Amino acid sequence: MLDSAHRSASDFLLEDVPHLSDYIPHLPTYPDPLQDNPSYSVVAQYYVNVDDTVAQQIVVHKNSPRGTHFRRAGPAQKVYFDSEEVYACIVTCGGLCPGLNTVIREIVCGLYHMYGVHKVLGIEGGYPGFYSRNTVPLTPKIVNDIHKRGGTILGTSYGGHDTSKIVDSIQDRGINQVYILGGYGTQYEAAMIFEEVRRRGLKVAVVGIPKTIDNDIPVIDKSIGFDTAVEEAQRAINSAHVEAESAENGIGVVKLMGRYSGFIAMYATLASRDVDCCLIPESPFYMEGPGGLLEFIEKRLKEQGHMVIVIAEGAGQELLSSNPFTHNKPDASADKLFPDVGLWLSHKIKDHFAKRQKMTINLKYIDPTYMIRAIPSNASDNVFCTLLAQSAVHGAMAGYTGFTVGPVNGRNCYIPFHLINEGEKRVVITDRMWARLLSSTHQPSFLNLKDITGEREERTENQTSAGQNHPEIAD
Amino acid sequence: MLDSAHRSASDFLLEDVPHLSDYIPHLPTYPDPLQDNPSYSVVAQYYVNVDDTVAQQIVVHKNSPRGTHFRRAGPAQKVYFDSEEVYACIVTCGGLCPGLNTVIREIVCGLYHMYGVHKVLGIEGGYPGFYSRNTVPLTPKIVNDIHKRGGTILGTSYGGHDTSKIVDSIQDRGINQVYILGGYGTQYEAAMIFEEVRRRGLKVAVVGIPKTIDNDIPVIDKSIGFDTAVEEAQRAINSAHVEAESAENGIGVVKLMGRYSGFIAMYATLASRDVDCCLIPESPFYMEGPGGLLEFIEKRLKEQGHMVIVIAEGAGQELLSSNPFTHNKPDASADKLFPDVGLWLSHKIKDHFAKRQKMTINLKYIDPTYMIRAIPSNASDNVFCTLLAQSAVHGAMAGYTGFTVGPVNGRNCYIPFHLINEGEKRVVITDRMWARLLSSTHQPSFLNLKDITGEREERTENQTSAGQNHPEIAD
Amino acid sequence: MLDSAHRSASDFLLEDVPHLSDYIPHLPTYPDPLQDNPSYSVVAQYYVNVDDTVAQQIVVHKNSPRGTHFRRAGPAQKVYFDSEEVYACIVTCGGLCPGLNTVIREIVCGLYHMYGVHKVLGIEGGYPGFYSRNTVPLTPKIVNDIHKRGGTILGTSYGGHDTSKIVDSIQDRGINQVYILGGYGTQYEAAMIFEEVRRRGLKVAVVGIPKTIDNDIPVIDKSIGFDTAVEEAQRAINSAHVEAESAENGIGVVKLMGRYSGFIAMYATLASRDVDCCLIPESPFYMEGPGGLLEFIEKRLKEQGHMVIVIAEGAGQELLSSNPFTHNKPDASADKLFPDVGLWLSHKIKDHFAKRQKMTINLKYIDPTYMIRAIPSNASDNVFCTLLAQSAVHGAMAGYTGFTVGPVNGRNCYIPFHLINEGEKRVVITDRMWARLLSSTHQPSFLNLKDITGEREERTENQTSAGQNHPEIAD
Amino acid sequence: MLDSAHRSASDFLLEDVPHLSDYIPHLPTYPDPLQDNPSYSVVAQYYVNVDDTVAQQIVVHKNSPRGTHFRRAGPAQKVYFDSEEVYACIVTCGGLCPGLNTVIREIVCGLYHMYGVHKVLGIEGGYPGFYSRNTVPLTPKIVNDIHKRGGTILGTSYGGHDTSKIVDSIQDRGINQVYILGGYGTQYEAAMIFEEVRRRGLKVAVVGIPKTIDNDIPVIDKSIGFDTAVEEAQRAINSAHVEAESAENGIGVVKLMGRYSGFIAMYATLASRDVDCCLIPESPFYMEGPGGLLEFIEKRLKEQGHMVIVIAEGAGQELLSSNPFTHNKPDASADKLFPDVGLWLSHKIKDHFAKRQKMTINLKYIDPTYMIRAIPSNASDNVFCTLLAQSAVHGAMAGYTGFTVGPVNGRNCYIPFHLINEGEKRVVITDRMWARLLSSTHQPSFLNLKDITGEREERTENQTSAGQNHPEIAD
Repeated sequence: MLDSAHRSASDFLLEDVPHLSDYIPHLPTYPDPLQDNPSYSVVAQYYVNVDDTVAQQIVVHKNSPRGTHFRRAGPAQKVYFDSEEVYACIVTCGGLCPGLNTVIREIVCGLYHMYGVHKVLGIEGGYPGFYSRNTVPLTPKIVNDIHKRGGTILGTSYGGHDTSKIVDSIQDRGINQVYILGGYGTQYEAAMIFEEVRRRGLKVAVVGIPKTIDNDIPVIDKSIGFDTAVEEAQRAINSAHVEAESAENGIGVVKLMGRYSGFIAMYATLASRDVDCCLIPESPFYMEGPGGLLEFIEKRLKEQGHMVIVIAEGAGQELLSSNPFTHNKPDASADKLFPDVGLWLSHKIKDHFAKRQKMTINLKYIDPTYMIRAIPSNASDNVFCTLLAQSAVHGAMAGYTGFTVGPVNGRNCYIPFHLINEGEKRVVITDRMWARLLSSTHQPSFLNLKDITGEREERTENQTSAGQNHPEIAD
Repeated sequence: MLDSAHRSASDFLLEDVPHLSDYIPHLPTYPDPLQDNPSYSVVAQYYVNVDDTVAQQIVVHKNSPRGTHFRRAGPAQKVYFDSEEVYACIVTCGGLCPGLNTVIREIVCGLYHMYGVHKVLGIEGGYPGFYSRNTVPLTPKIVNDIHKRGGTILGTSYGGHDTSKIVDSIQDRGINQVYILGGYGTQYEAAMIFEEVRRRGLKVAVVGIPKTIDNDIPVIDKSIGFDTAVEEAQRAINSAHVEAESAENGIGVVKLMGRYSGFIAMYATLASRDVDCCLIPESPFYMEGPGGLLEFIEKRLKEQGHMVIVIAEGAGQELLSSNPFTHNKPDASADKLFPDVGLWLSHKIKDHFAKRQKMTINLKYIDPTYMIRAIPSNASDNVFCTLLAQSAVHGAMAGYTGFTVGPVNGRNCYIPFHLINEGEKRVVITDRMWARLLSSTHQPSFLNLKDITGEREERTENQTSAGQNHPEIAD
Repeated sequence: MLDSAHRSASDFLLEDVPHLSDYIPHLPTYPDPLQDNPSYSVVAQYYVNVDDTVAQQIVVHKNSPRGTHFRRAGPAQKVYFDSEEVYACIVTCGGLCPGLNTVIREIVCGLYHMYGVHKVLGIEGGYPGFYSRNTVPLTPKIVNDIHKRGGTILGTSYGGHDTSKIVDSIQDRGINQVYILGGYGTQYEAAMIFEEVRRRGLKVAVVGIPKTIDNDIPVIDKSIGFDTAVEEAQRAINSAHVEAESAENGIGVVKLMGRYSGFIAMYATLASRDVDCCLIPESPFYMEGPGGLLEFIEKRLKEQGHMVIVIAEGAGQELLSSNPFTHNKPDASADKLFPDVGLWLSHKIKDHFAKRQKMTINLKYIDPTYMIRAIPSNASDNVFCTLLAQSAVHGAMAGYTGFTVGPVNGRNCYIPFHLINEGEKRVVITDRMWARLLSSTHQPSFLNLKDITGEREERTENQTSAGQNHPEIAD
Repeated sequence: MLDSAHRSASDFLLEDVPHLSDYIPHLPTYPDPLQDNPSYSVVAQYYVNVDDTVAQQIVVHKNSPRGTHFRRAGPAQKVYFDSEEVYACIVTCGGLCPGLNTVIREIVCGLYHMYGVHKVLGIEGGYPGFYSRNTVPLTPKIVNDIHKRGGTILGTSYGGHDTSKIVDSIQDRGINQVYILGGYGTQYEAAMIFEEVRRRGLKVAVVGIPKTIDNDIPVIDKSIGFDTAVEEAQRAINSAHVEAESAENGIGVVKLMGRYSGFIAMYATLASRDVDCCLIPESPFYMEGPGGLLEFIEKRLKEQGHMVIVIAEGAGQELLSSNPFTHNKPDASADKLFPDVGLWLSHKIKDHFAKRQKMTINLKYIDPTYMIRAIPSNASDNVFCTLLAQSAVHGAMAGYTGFTVGPVNGRNCYIPFHLINEGEKRVVITDRMWARLLSSTHQPSFLNLKDITGEREERTENQTSAGQNHPEIAD
């Protein structure tokens, strides 16, 4: 065994996360209070072994190297905070997604019930709340029912990040655990807070919890609220389908979330089966001419008399930007009426068929964005949020910092901020999931052969089985 | 690389599946028709490499052995059936669960659109349908909307398996791909069909698709409909909670599915957070005396005035069997009114508090079983069913047989029947997920120290990180 | 005009309600504070005229007499309470139904916002709460979100009514407006409270608000929560239908609420259209022999292979009482397992087909009772509850007492208790609504000609067009 | 009795409907086939008396005149069509609303099961379908499950009405019963068809069934799908509320249906209680200055930090028309992007606060229109649609024509087309229901005293108790 291990160890890579003891010497440790907790005392192997890691590469060959691994999340035998000493805070940033309240609830309850931590502060209104808004004390009683509500009880905002002022506030208040719920940008700013905290040598654990309904955070399998969002999107697609079917040459257009990645659009389309065309940012399309979208619409209408189009909000942005409607408006406020790709697409389609005069169409445009993201999380996301929150708490108590918690191949891990911040995750349109979608909708790929060949060559053989971009079950 | 591979290969184990060519020599092969499919032609690496495997052990140490692997599901470069030659059949056995119609739909559409297979037969009413009931031809048009309906359009039944007659029927009809949707028992019988088919030397691929709402099929992460079931169970728990809260000493009892394993009860409890006690088959409990359930109920009622109990249908069966109500009844039909553990528990609790005369309780019993399992699958299960069905089709076309398809660490694999049939998967009550539940409900463990110590010792260190019994995300 | 009025006035009957001034002389009056309310000041004719009445007889002939009328609900120009003086209390009694919290909310908000009344007390746990339990002050802030929750925030109970102690408590606390939410029995007891209050000469308005999910309160069109209940019952019927369709000779049995009246069963059946047989208390049936239920089941199974039966909980009680299972058990607690007509019916059907040995059936029994009655009210019931609560408040402020508020032909009225207490409302099985149901299910009427003729003769011609038993829209 | 009847009869007015025998002499009659129907034979008084009428005036005084009455809907003892002779057709016109498929189903099943009529034709795509599109035969089997789907299986369209061609088509095909589902405009055109049919002396019954989600058809209590629409609108309002609460100065704007009448907006607001301002076409408002909307928004944001605005699509049109954005665009297609009052309002609010620079707001705009109107009808609407369809069938079989069927004070009646076409029903903003809304939202009335006084004077005393504009329960 040892021998074999030795041999294979050479190609084993661990992407480890920072630890408070990396920059603060002589930190005292304490036995994990869970060992006295009646609920946990029955568990045989409750603690994660300090050597436990989770493999990123899971589709392997007999002879393939072992590759990248991440630190497994979970309670450690020694903790770096005394329960009395902990003063935690939670902040939610960016747009809403289902499950925020559940994560807040479970951080509070996890700290309280598992670790006996009673001081938790809610920062209101996102990052600026650290220095310009109210805070609210959070207890298990206060958060008891919040998982049944959509949104975030803490409020949220975009922007307003001022690293220095935030860390001043953390230091002034004596906070030593910071839980930050947010998406791609928020995690980037969380890294800046961590760096500043480390620079100042503070004993403060900075933990990111990935929240983005677009599901575009790299490395991890999926982010919270994604399942709920895909589920709720079905309503809009069903309505679009009914409207389209009930009218002559009825076209239902549904805009779904996804500025840079089309995961919600892709999964909602696959789950529904009533969609004839799904347009996402990763797969460029064009309107006019042979092989274009308008030609396809005309064809599909002639075949079946109606059709449903799903478009992610970030799809076709290169087409919009060259559009006179959006381009030549100097007035900022007027401009705000136009960035909606769904409105733009609807207008283009109506315009085309109106001009051609041969075909009357009936287009109905549905934008369910806020109705999707403002609902409470479903049961699956509720359990997911619970494990994520508890993993975050275990990590902070164990002294880890500067990490985002998230599932890799179904196991929660601690992932260093720098990997999260390397770039948004995208739908890989040369992967099987996208092929599956094309096969389901029978839509054109909008690609010409040259493009495809080019993209094919860029990928090396080892990447093919990665599939890290597939939330949940992939094949 | 080669050198490293050589070294580590010694502890790499592949649990491979049978192949038609194992017992039929000189089978011709054909190029996969997907390569001419416009939807798939853009995909860079559509085919799975014949060496692709999925690791079962995913929480690893730097020096740990590589362990068991399964064959990765997906399309092969060569197929063993000509499209024209294929005559497939689908049968659904056992109880209902959400997603059956989606799997049926996607097998039919997958065979049709991906492989050009036009002959698919539905066997009605489960296994006996092979020899005693009608069959129905299945086409994409017929199955187009069935995923929006609960149940199975093919009908189902328990039992009636006669291997010889079934294989006779397969042989007589010229069927060469058999897709069997069913649970633990059904998969066992599918293995018998496969053995008989192999004994007769027939070119017939026998494929199992795991269907059990109890989620108790070993090896795989989860079975279809599980997410939907946990979601729908929330309604019953919510109602029990409202009823309990509105009455003096109100007790809401909800019975959920799970004859041998308590996965639905456990996940529904974790997702809800309104449950005060969750009873599952894996965790024995007792009613009377110190540390018993009745004592806990009285305590909780005094603390908060109401409580909610979730009980899996297989929990406490050892208590029921010693009960005079169920034991001394020679009349079979009368007996049928009593095997319901929910009714039994409700009766015991009412009886106890009625006798004690000190405490008036208001108990409401809810059995939502059929309302949970008869609904259509949610979006998440719909996508899951699609991938599972497509994986099954790819496997059969590639000539594999005698396997169940299912997700391992989030990747669909082909798993030999014998592993599936080694025993139902159970909730491991010395694992963290159960501790998490205990921590959430603050219920007693109903274990005394001796029991726990004994169980702890049975587990070896290597098993600790297994967690294969956790569907979805674990930490 | 006067002349015509004079002529027709002779056959105009007003069933008026008591007024505080009937037994307390020289009560001061006050101008209605609504006249200073900015929301109401724009309303042209906000006050109801003291002569406004609502006709009970609405299907009329040119020459028919004018018949019975009720006092129209609404704000009066003079009120008999000063805002500062009012001390109101609310109590909820009996079983849950959707909308209780909405009514509580709207009484509190109505008193507060419309009349400036700030002292409202919630009596916890039903009638006994007046003398043995806690009370809770109710303010608009406390009740702000309760309409989104099922159940009643005040708690409820059956029985425990002690008129003398309740009126003592009312008198001791100085309460002068009592709002009582409850069903048939509760309204009867409310009348007793009113009588005692009048006997003691107290200035206390006693107002009943009809709450019964069975919809069996006479005179009024419908009671709160009925719409929501019928809606939610669809889930159970759908599940029963799916289960039945998926099995050979599948039978789905759904028990719905209705001890003495089958309104929910009838409306749920009409709304669903998947039901093959609906059994209600008002329409006796028999099991064995020609024309019996078992014969019909066998016939329907042979015709279509499956069937769905809806049974109201009070149906067939005369059959149960003669059943050895329920009759010879002296043990009260054991007996409690048997009063369930759904279990009894399921057992009888299974037993019958098991004995006949010719037909295997698959029966699934669903009892959704608590899942139906514990949900929040739907939008329609929410608006209904609002108007009902406001009508109750207007009535009490105007000095009326001893009345139940409820809709008659779509207009809220004040109805004297004695009319409400004359007997539960029943489905009239010789009316068109029941014929419509028989026509929809194609079930036998289980009546022989003699019975029908008898019943026909009992009805006089004038009653035929009454239809007071039809909630909502009738034709 | 006779004497009294005689006396009061002088002020009894019946607004009767045309009958085929009015213009076709010597029409043969037949006994109603229902008398041989086993489901109906048990009913004592199944037939409506030829003298049965329904009173429009239901809130009355002892001396008030009897007023207007309508012919009661229901089966007649004599019918004017032989079952074999009937050839019916159904057409759906205008926009979607929940319940269309239920009405189609019940006309087909009603004709078939009650009257033995087997020839029913579906006209596809609205009025133009009579002469330019396909038709589809409708049988109980075909329509069996359609009530579970939204939309209309027949398709629909706006416009395309050509009376002459339509009646030609009716005549050519030998159709003798025409069922027309549509809103205000459609009923007007149905009247034209009736007039032409009468002019030609055809034995063709022309029946209107009111379908408008705006609920703006006069005389009748409510139109189909209204309950469902108000229910579904709650989702959008909830989402707007969650979004608004989660942001600093969050404003949720929800646009609901209602071009000329604000019933959906008003009822959805009353049912929700989360709305701070409801804007409808009947109640003009202004943006700027004291008492204007912008001032109110600023005030409410300062008070509670967030707010929800519901706006009916036809509200504030006079403000839009004077807006440079919508006015000066000669290009028709571009103009189509702007008629949306919700977008306009959102833009105005954003613009205002952006310019004032003092207040950052977060506005989220939700337009759930198609998601509301494309869903299947709820249980309440399903029963309503059934009775309406059956009433329509009874009326046509009885030889009545040129009428719309609909509920008046809860009883279905036959109403002559000319009354339906006198003008859309509006929310009366000087009635109590609107005052109730103002009281619930605490929004300003946007009226100055002069306006109100003027409007008050226009109303005569007799109108005060009318309330015909209130669907469902009013007080």
